[in-house]
Amino acid sequence: MKVVTFGELMLRLAPAGYLRFVQSNKFEATFGGAEANVAVSLANFNQEVKFVSKLPSHEIGQMAVNSLRQFGVDTSEIVRGGDRVGIYYCEKGASQRPSKVIYDRANSSIALAKKEEFDWDKIFKDVDWFHFTGITPALSKEVALICEEACKKAKERHINISCDLNFRKKLWSNKEANEVMSKLCEYIDICIANEEDAKDVFGIEASGTDIESGKLNKDGYVEVAKKLSDRFNFKYMAITLRESISANDNNWSAMLYNAKDGQAYFSKKYAMHIVDRVGGGDSFGAGLIYAFRNEYKEQDAIEFAVAASCLKHSIEGDYNMVSVNEVKALVNGGSSGRVQR
Amino acid sequence: MKVVTFGELMLRLAPAGYLRFVQSNKFEATFGGAEANVAVSLANFNQEVKFVSKLPSHEIGQMAVNSLRQFGVDTSEIVRGGDRVGIYYCEKGASQRPSKVIYDRANSSIALAKKEEFDWDKIFKDVDWFHFTGITPALSKEVALICEEACKKAKERHINISCDLNFRKKLWSNKEANEVMSKLCEYIDICIANEEDAKDVFGIEASGTDIESGKLNKDGYVEVAKKLSDRFNFKYMAITLRESISANDNNWSAMLYNAKDGQAYFSKKYAMHIVDRVGGGDSFGAGLIYAFRNEYKEQDAIEFAVAASCLKHSIEGDYNMVSVNEVKALVNGGSSGRVQR
Amino acid sequence: MKVVTFGELMLRLAPAGYLRFVQSNKFEATFGGAEANVAVSLANFNQEVKFVSKLPSHEIGQMAVNSLRQFGVDTSEIVRGGDRVGIYYCEKGASQRPSKVIYDRANSSIALAKKEEFDWDKIFKDVDWFHFTGITPALSKEVALICEEACKKAKERHINISCDLNFRKKLWSNKEANEVMSKLCEYIDICIANEEDAKDVFGIEASGTDIESGKLNKDGYVEVAKKLSDRFNFKYMAITLRESISANDNNWSAMLYNAKDGQAYFSKKYAMHIVDRVGGGDSFGAGLIYAFRNEYKEQDAIEFAVAASCLKHSIEGDYNMVSVNEVKALVNGGSSGRVQR
Amino acid sequence: MKVVTFGELMLRLAPAGYLRFVQSNKFEATFGGAEANVAVSLANFNQEVKFVSKLPSHEIGQMAVNSLRQFGVDTSEIVRGGDRVGIYYCEKGASQRPSKVIYDRANSSIALAKKEEFDWDKIFKDVDWFHFTGITPALSKEVALICEEACKKAKERHINISCDLNFRKKLWSNKEANEVMSKLCEYIDICIANEEDAKDVFGIEASGTDIESGKLNKDGYVEVAKKLSDRFNFKYMAITLRESISANDNNWSAMLYNAKDGQAYFSKKYAMHIVDRVGGGDSFGAGLIYAFRNEYKEQDAIEFAVAASCLKHSIEGDYNMVSVNEVKALVNGGSSGRVQR
Amino acid sequence: MKVVTFGELMLRLAPAGYLRFVQSNKFEATFGGAEANVAVSLANFNQEVKFVSKLPSHEIGQMAVNSLRQFGVDTSEIVRGGDRVGIYYCEKGASQRPSKVIYDRANSSIALAKKEEFDWDKIFKDVDWFHFTGITPALSKEVALICEEACKKAKERHINISCDLNFRKKLWSNKEANEVMSKLCEYIDICIANEEDAKDVFGIEASGTDIESGKLNKDGYVEVAKKLSDRFNFKYMAITLRESISANDNNWSAMLYNAKDGQAYFSKKYAMHIVDRVGGGDSFGAGLIYAFRNEYKEQDAIEFAVAASCLKHSIEGDYNMVSVNEVKALVNGGSSGRVQR
Amino acid sequence: MKVVTFGELMLRLAPAGYLRFVQSNKFEATFGGAEANVAVSLANFNQEVKFVSKLPSHEIGQMAVNSLRQFGVDTSEIVRGGDRVGIYYCEKGASQRPSKVIYDRANSSIALAKKEEFDWDKIFKDVDWFHFTGITPALSKEVALICEEACKKAKERHINISCDLNFRKKLWSNKEANEVMSKLCEYIDICIANEEDAKDVFGIEASGTDIESGKLNKDGYVEVAKKLSDRFNFKYMAITLRESISANDNNWSAMLYNAKDGQAYFSKKYAMHIVDRVGGGDSFGAGLIYAFRNEYKEQDAIEFAVAASCLKHSIEGDYNMVSVNEVKALVNGGSSGRVQR
Repeated sequence: MKVVTFGELMLRLAPAGYLRFVQSNKFEATFGGAEANVAVSLANFNQEVKFVSKLPSHEIGQMAVNSLRQFGVDTSEIVRGGDRVGIYYCEKGASQRPSKVIYDRANSSIALAKKEEFDWDKIFKDVDWFHFTGITPALSKEVALICEEACKKAKERHINISCDLNFRKKLWSNKEANEVMSKLCEYIDICIANEEDAKDVFGIEASGTDIESGKLNKDGYVEVAKKLSDRFNFKYMAITLRESISANDNNWSAMLYNAKDGQAYFSKKYAMHIVDRVGGGDSFGAGLIYAFRNEYKEQDAIEFAVAASCLKHSIEGDYNMVSVNEVKALVNGGSSGRVQR
Repeated sequence: MKVVTFGELMLRLAPAGYLRFVQSNKFEATFGGAEANVAVSLANFNQEVKFVSKLPSHEIGQMAVNSLRQFGVDTSEIVRGGDRVGIYYCEKGASQRPSKVIYDRANSSIALAKKEEFDWDKIFKDVDWFHFTGITPALSKEVALICEEACKKAKERHINISCDLNFRKKLWSNKEANEVMSKLCEYIDICIANEEDAKDVFGIEASGTDIESGKLNKDGYVEVAKKLSDRFNFKYMAITLRESISANDNNWSAMLYNAKDGQAYFSKKYAMHIVDRVGGGDSFGAGLIYAFRNEYKEQDAIEFAVAASCLKHSIEGDYNMVSVNEVKALVNGGSSGRVQR
Repeated sequence: MKVVTFGELMLRLAPAGYLRFVQSNKFEATFGGAEANVAVSLANFNQEVKFVSKLPSHEIGQMAVNSLRQFGVDTSEIVRGGDRVGIYYCEKGASQRPSKVIYDRANSSIALAKKEEFDWDKIFKDVDWFHFTGITPALSKEVALICEEACKKAKERHINISCDLNFRKKLWSNKEANEVMSKLCEYIDICIANEEDAKDVFGIEASGTDIESGKLNKDGYVEVAKKLSDRFNFKYMAITLRESISANDNNWSAMLYNAKDGQAYFSKKYAMHIVDRVGGGDSFGAGLIYAFRNEYKEQDAIEFAVAASCLKHSIEGDYNMVSVNEVKALVNGGSSGRVQR
Repeated sequence: MKVVTFGELMLRLAPAGYLRFVQSNKFEATFGGAEANVAVSLANFNQEVKFVSKLPSHEIGQMAVNSLRQFGVDTSEIVRGGDRVGIYYCEKGASQRPSKVIYDRANSSIALAKKEEFDWDKIFKDVDWFHFTGITPALSKEVALICEEACKKAKERHINISCDLNFRKKLWSNKEANEVMSKLCEYIDICIANEEDAKDVFGIEASGTDIESGKLNKDGYVEVAKKLSDRFNFKYMAITLRESISANDNNWSAMLYNAKDGQAYFSKKYAMHIVDRVGGGDSFGAGLIYAFRNEYKEQDAIEFAVAASCLKHSIEGDYNMVSVNEVKALVNGGSSGRVQR
Repeated sequence: MKVVTFGELMLRLAPAGYLRFVQSNKFEATFGGAEANVAVSLANFNQEVKFVSKLPSHEIGQMAVNSLRQFGVDTSEIVRGGDRVGIYYCEKGASQRPSKVIYDRANSSIALAKKEEFDWDKIFKDVDWFHFTGITPALSKEVALICEEACKKAKERHINISCDLNFRKKLWSNKEANEVMSKLCEYIDICIANEEDAKDVFGIEASGTDIESGKLNKDGYVEVAKKLSDRFNFKYMAITLRESISANDNNWSAMLYNAKDGQAYFSKKYAMHIVDRVGGGDSFGAGLIYAFRNEYKEQDAIEFAVAASCLKHSIEGDYNMVSVNEVKALVNGGSSGRVQR
Repeated sequence: MKVVTFGELMLRLAPAGYLRFVQSNKFEATFGGAEANVAVSLANFNQEVKFVSKLPSHEIGQMAVNSLRQFGVDTSEIVRGGDRVGIYYCEKGASQRPSKVIYDRANSSIALAKKEEFDWDKIFKDVDWFHFTGITPALSKEVALICEEACKKAKERHINISCDLNFRKKLWSNKEANEVMSKLCEYIDICIANEEDAKDVFGIEASGTDIESGKLNKDGYVEVAKKLSDRFNFKYMAITLRESISANDNNWSAMLYNAKDGQAYFSKKYAMHIVDRVGGGDSFGAGLIYAFRNEYKEQDAIEFAVAASCLKHSIEGDYNMVSVNEVKALVNGGSSGRVQR
């Protein structure tokens, strides 16, 4: 059985090391996008996974496809056509200087895709899990409809649906997000969010937390998860908890809320030296999907997901390049970074 | 007195060396565009030159501005705003494998620019030369109108107008080009074209020439120049003559036609080992403008322009990084490439 | 229906540009091997192709697998295990300085592989073509036996078998090669060789040719093809003809001999500026397989194969990164290297 | 109105990353120098700024000019001539290993410049601020005289004069520095120093401070500022306070002393992970000049200057590549380094 | 008088920066090996030192020789022959992600070397110190015998013998190590170990220590040193004490035990930000040998050795590129990383 | 017995590939200098060779020393001291664009060296060959005196003396060169020159030759050799003959004149595709010295020297990285550049 993820795959253009954009005459050219990141992460956990999107048939589109294919992601359902691969420029922050992302994703092949280009019955053959994030329906009204159709089809086939709220203010307003996501959330079994999404999309805020200062209040997040789960009938809600100390240092943990029994499970907290934090949330989602598909208990699931995403922060690029064994080693206490010979 | 050039400046993304796109995970990030290339080339000839365009105010837009500013081009009349810098991906060919260019320039800041954003009276203060190419009016209907207004204003001020036909079939059809360029050509004093443009834009072909095979017929080009000059009342028409032997080896020469006396001047022909041929035509235009502004005689002018653009083919990137002295040295016979200590 | 190729995939370590080994502190790390090169080439021609080998399960083995997977080669039948990925160090020559290859491939996973690790019935499901080269049986006695078994199984299933003689004097003696290849040739339908292989393996030499000086005698090669085809009952024999002028400049053509009617077809000859000549022969093999599987006539087949491999010489690395359309464009006369916009 | 800065611009040659000199066969080639750094920093704050120096007319001199021009610094008053661009080699330290700078700046064009080459009346047209550092008069006796003349001319025109003491023991002795700087300080309105300069140049030491151990005594610095301000009639004196914990970690703050009312203003202190600390002091000076020219109150001025230079430490190269908005964001508490999308 | 070290020198292939293997298409190519690292370190301390090994005569072997020669190591006694240079692939860890080493060293020239190839009487001419580590005898049974012969010959000549236990579980079992090292330890004057070696080789464990958690118990290590010194009659035993907090942060100190008087000397402890920790132990050994050869007192010796190896952790590659003066500066308190101009 | 060469070793800073200076923000940092180039070349021919010079004791000086040491050159007689390593900036030409060298070598350690720093009796122990070039005495009057002393001492010890005239117009005038070289030539046994030196230094020109156009007249060079040999009593005079077709293509040959019998020996002529031509003449000198020291006959000697320097043109950097076997292979006809496996 396979996992399907659906969304946009972008070209990521980044200066080397800590150079600022205006100091650069070379860009690292990698690829990334929330749902593709989840797909690669799952492929690296030896899960069968298919990424669905639309990409141009020219060579830049092919580079994007190859970037997934090399890690074993099934790309056979990617529609080929349209003119452009969406781009994001990414400058790495350091110390007090924040990282910076400039999007140039409008009018990409997927943003202009048509509903009839995706045959969900064919896509969902032999599939037991469907994942997307709030970025996908934000790409265009049409893509939001495609998302909805995918959810319906998945529901019919009793496929598990997970969604990371992933609010992007450059793509839509809070109001638009609320409207669309409220409809899609009806289909979702497992909802994932970071410490800000619930507020941005649904106006539901964790009390006693100051995001900017990095202080987080645990109880507030349980409350948020309960409210959303009650409203949308989620089975589980997971919230990642990032404490930003500087661009180089973050603390990282998460909570998993079981809506059935109202129990909340908090993970261990990791103090991370960051190599690259883009894709951190996606690697958490992938860890959680892995854990659920492999029938981990709640505490084990959240520990696995957090450890997986903790390791992502030590890896360049959007994709999380870690194996199940490496995640388990960290869960089991191997955080000392001793050389493995 | 200054030169003004008007057009689009794009981000050029190119794999290193002879790598193909699908082999690359890094791109050289330089900037280029027909009219900006002319501007930089003129700045390197110590001409005062101002480039007019529209570029986003974000850092990628700033990189584009800086790329001109470093060589001394006046960028104070570039309108800042809009969302994106146009992009072109460029793969270098070798031997029998041709170079490849993929454009992603739709919806760039300049393509979406409005007429009222450009104050040509201000722009043309202390200016004696205006240059653009057929690419600029092809960007959008609005930009075509802006071009027309610029031409009118230039004409009123007795500013010399040069234009390189530069037909781009990805931007418009032959028919559209014909329509728009026919109107603009009325204003043009000096028309520049390569061995294919006249046919593509106006359906006027040099007889006895087979572009693909690299065989060119001199007389045919005189004929073409005469026809176009007669129709549009050009003072001069210059045609570059490229013989493509392989992606690495080209022969390069050009012709200058004086409409007044019907005299045609052919330059020396150079056998070039190519480092980078993008921008070759633009460097020719810049050479010609330099020669005319410095009152070279026809034969000297065409020799200077061809030598300048011959040197461009030995230089990476769109911009021609050569000085007047270097061009003169080549004109005077220094083509042996002996080390200068 | 799929193609299967079987052989070793090595890590290729090469200094940048024209640096010599002793000048380097960085190596380009790509992958290559005769049969894997054929597989990638075919995948780039949109053929379904499966590469069979043995590679370690550690990350270096994974890099090798990914290098194929990214281009769409099916790697599901690669046995994972053993300790090492074979290596070859490759220094690029220039002008009068020849390229240099240092092998460090002994004791690789595939060289130590056991017969029982390969289930050819499973491998050959839905397969219509099997390709290997003389390098594979030279890896070890056991691997020679595996080759033989593969040939037998293929024959039973009426799968076409092609083999490139590819003599490597560092792997075995002429005598050993003769012995083993004589046995394997009984199974082969289409035999490929370069201008030296027939002599090295079977002692059959084209008369009137001096390899080192680059002078080749056409009739001699027809003779060689006839002799070998008669002896081993080949349907076709193809011989590539390289004239080495310098490390940078080679002439390249080939001959296809139809054993049934004794007709020989010679291709056009290309004068190449070489970017990377390693894998040149393999890309020829892939071109020929493509042509035969797509029922090209003899002359068309040899032109396609030679044009495909001509383009390979303009591409870095072992793998031929060209599409069918690009090859056809060259066959149809587009060798002028004009920019494709 | 413009700012003028006057000094040397050097070629900075640095190994990549943390490589030591003896491990390197490549150097990053950027440019820097105390006064040029201030100029670029101010240009990035959208201040009109002119850098005055002397640089050779050859290409290496041109590279230096272009490095300023790209960021919008006016280079029209740089005298062109002489033979060499001064060089400094710079090796980045890590952990307990200190950074290392090797100077090769003797006999540079500016060090050998003549007084008559600078026409200060022309240079100071439309100028309201003049800045130099103690490095400039240390370059040669003649350059010290040029500095003095510049100060006199600036004074006559009621231009504000700021100076960073910037003692360099490789350029002159404490005694020479004392002599020359004592004379120049008579002209200075705003004096800037680091925690060691006052002692090195004037023998005035902050009591209770141990530089090497990183312990600094606030009161001692107020005392130093008072003594110097009284002696030279400064309007303001600013002292940067660096606590070096390791090559990677420094604390950074500063004090601004208003001589008129004897009030001292201490900034917030930042714990920095250092990317590149060269130019840290210069970015402070630029921040202070910006704040004064924009009529910030004392506390706001010192906070702006310290935040600006804090950000510099996260940026490669001598030049501070930050905007006023970025500095303000840090001043206003945004030090968590969260990604800006 | 010279030092001799004996062992394997390997090619180290490492991705750039923090890239994982599967993200890389380039490898840094440096060289390293425990005993060669000691040799280079000593050469950088201006000690005369000769490295003994066997390396192929081809260019990769030559690269290995040159890597030592450039730093002044005498390579005249390296036997040239055999087929391969051993390789190790090295991926740098970050934060919670550990570094990873993959060995491909079997069948290297030295591993297949024969006893008769080494003439120890010649090698030990004018030598007063012989150093090897537990890796050397683990390469093969024959090499273990060569080690034994070298020890005997050294003993006869009253040459000091130092050995770092350096247990490598990929090369031999604990049992094999115990057997061979028990014999060799009879010859050793100064034994060096890390916090795990004594347990791995001789089953002697420091009580009260949990390596993985990074908690170390000082008394336990004195006990271990005493037990081993008593058993093998060592004059000194030194144990390095690493506390791994993360892949980026380690604490580093060591103990020197004088067997004659039972006194233990503990060094200062350094909190290190790690650039590259491979070779850390070797640089300690080199520091100790330097200190003993220069008749440092015990406390001074252990401080020098620890400071030297602390600095190594800030340097890329296996080799410690620091001078005696730099080590002394750190011993004397200069750990603040202030720029040295 | 050893060879001694004496001269300056400079840091060579060069943009990557064909980039112009003003396009670069990185420099390749290698080392070179006429006499050092000869030394490395000879070391690569397995000759014992000592390079004598003066270099600073700082790390940049050490980099220079290490660059020689890695190839086995004896650096023990290099005086350490002074402040700077001379620099030359080197931009590689292509096609009609010439290469460009900018010198920044004034006031280097060797240029300011004193006579008493060199103990020629010690230096010349066990030496049978002394080589320098016309660059060395041009460095300063003092260094010219040192050269003279070295020549005297060499003569006394019956050491062979070879000198390459190597006129550098940036270092001295033709008149100065004539004066100094006339004195030094009295000591020289074997004089080497390129096709222009004799004219530049002694005003003796080969008739019928036009350097710039690349046409050379053989007889003219015999005449020149005869004149100079007669005047200075040379035993042999060798003249290299370069025909520059473009920066990428040169023809290369040479003549050896035996003064005793007046016989001239012309080598084969090579058509070279140039990778890097700097150091081409030096590699010729080294080849000639090797040939003479190994008692080659005249024709063999000139063939060896020309083939060695032909190969140099295919190698990046100043140093010729080729072995005797590689040179012999070329002499014996192996110029086809076929891959060596």
